[in-house]
Amino acid sequence: MKIAYDGTAYHGWQVQPNAITIQETLQEGIKKILQKDIGVTGCSRTDAGVHAKEFYCHLDCDDNIPKEAFLRGLNSVLPNDISVMDAKVVPSDFHARYSAKGKNYIYNFYYGVTNPFLDRYALRLDREIDLDVTNEFCKSLIGKYDFYGFSSSGRSVEDTVRTVTDCKIYLKDDFVRFDISANGFLYNMVRIIVGTALGVSYGRLETDVAKKVFETKDRSLAGQTVPPNGLFLNKVFY
Amino acid sequence: MKIAYDGTAYHGWQVQPNAITIQETLQEGIKKILQKDIGVTGCSRTDAGVHAKEFYCHLDCDDNIPKEAFLRGLNSVLPNDISVMDAKVVPSDFHARYSAKGKNYIYNFYYGVTNPFLDRYALRLDREIDLDVTNEFCKSLIGKYDFYGFSSSGRSVEDTVRTVTDCKIYLKDDFVRFDISANGFLYNMVRIIVGTALGVSYGRLETDVAKKVFETKDRSLAGQTVPPNGLFLNKVFY
Repeated sequence: MKIAYDGTAYHGWQVQPNAITIQETLQEGIKKILQKDIGVTGCSRTDAGVHAKEFYCHLDCDDNIPKEAFLRGLNSVLPNDISVMDAKVVPSDFHARYSAKGKNYIYNFYYGVTNPFLDRYALRLDREIDLDVTNEFCKSLIGKYDFYGFSSSGRSVEDTVRTVTDCKIYLKDDFVRFDISANGFLYNMVRIIVGTALGVSYGRLETDVAKKVFETKDRSLAGQTVPPNGLFLNKVFY
Repeated sequence: MKIAYDGTAYHGWQVQPNAITIQETLQEGIKKILQKDIGVTGCSRTDAGVHAKEFYCHLDCDDNIPKEAFLRGLNSVLPNDISVMDAKVVPSDFHARYSAKGKNYIYNFYYGVTNPFLDRYALRLDREIDLDVTNEFCKSLIGKYDFYGFSSSGRSVEDTVRTVTDCKIYLKDDFVRFDISANGFLYNMVRIIVGTALGVSYGRLETDVAKKVFETKDRSLAGQTVPPNGLFLNKVFY
């Protein structure tokens, strides 16, 4: 299933006690349609408040429902901030997470007074970003590196080496957009990288700070973790 | 003050018991800044769930605070879905509502499956709007008419004659946008006119239905009242 969601009201993707999550809401919707409990496996564990323009998940079931009826039925029982955009039958060895070859995240900023229509999807800044300086920092991330120092202690993996295939910052409609693609991302990696980019842009951190974080694996050399509302899982590559 | 708000979480502009409104939230914010109760008078009484890209309100006070400090302070205590964009000192005979010469409202539609990022600000339609036919209906509204039949029983005025100065429907970014300007609007007038436009587009109502509604003042000849989420107070003319 290809889904999209506005994550503002949710405590992230993954089911957890005492908090409403996307996974749980989706599973409850599927239960209403198929009349049974079916677990849904997501491509990623987005954090509380993070959005997804494109998110994939898989489920195992032997029901035979026409796609259009399944989409229409499921969307009719889901809240309007979660939408199932498409669905298809995949080979049984397909795995939403492990079959993914890479992902693209974007992070939005805007300037000026609080804008009620942008603030849900972007971080407001009082000071303009220096796009040239920040793009220098972005370029220094491209390649295969150990991103341990760009992740939080909640990380769940042993291997912290990732390959960033593209990273840039540019103007896009009402926003300044940070755009990063990699073969995989560690816990809080994008939000720490974006916070580091801000630190570089504002002169609090050196343009070559990434090199030092890669070498030392020292989280404290990187920037702050930015809030989740500006972050979107934008594309997943299979 | 020029403000903007995402009306999703509010029961409209006007203070009312047991419901959170924009006016109340704004007055509470002002109380935090100026340490006293000051009533704020709005240019319009938007309904629950309706948004405003531009809304004006006035207040009487004899405090002397630099504008930038007032804006910054007030925005810092307001929730992020309400923003004060600008403020200025006006002559004492200025009245946010009665000095307004006209207003412009827009109503957004979109097509396809539920889009979590559009649905908050637009009405989803399964069937495309016929822009040519609908624009014919739009043109028939332009002029000075009695809009009684295009208003709901909650109306608070005696005189129901209004002059529509512009009305059209067109594609705009991700949306189909209905766009109407008049010297004033009655209770639910835009939402009933938009519902009538849909009825005309879908062939349930005749293109010249407005003429009959003007003549008979019969609300039941017009279309349904559309939901508030697609509606924005877009501009106010002084």
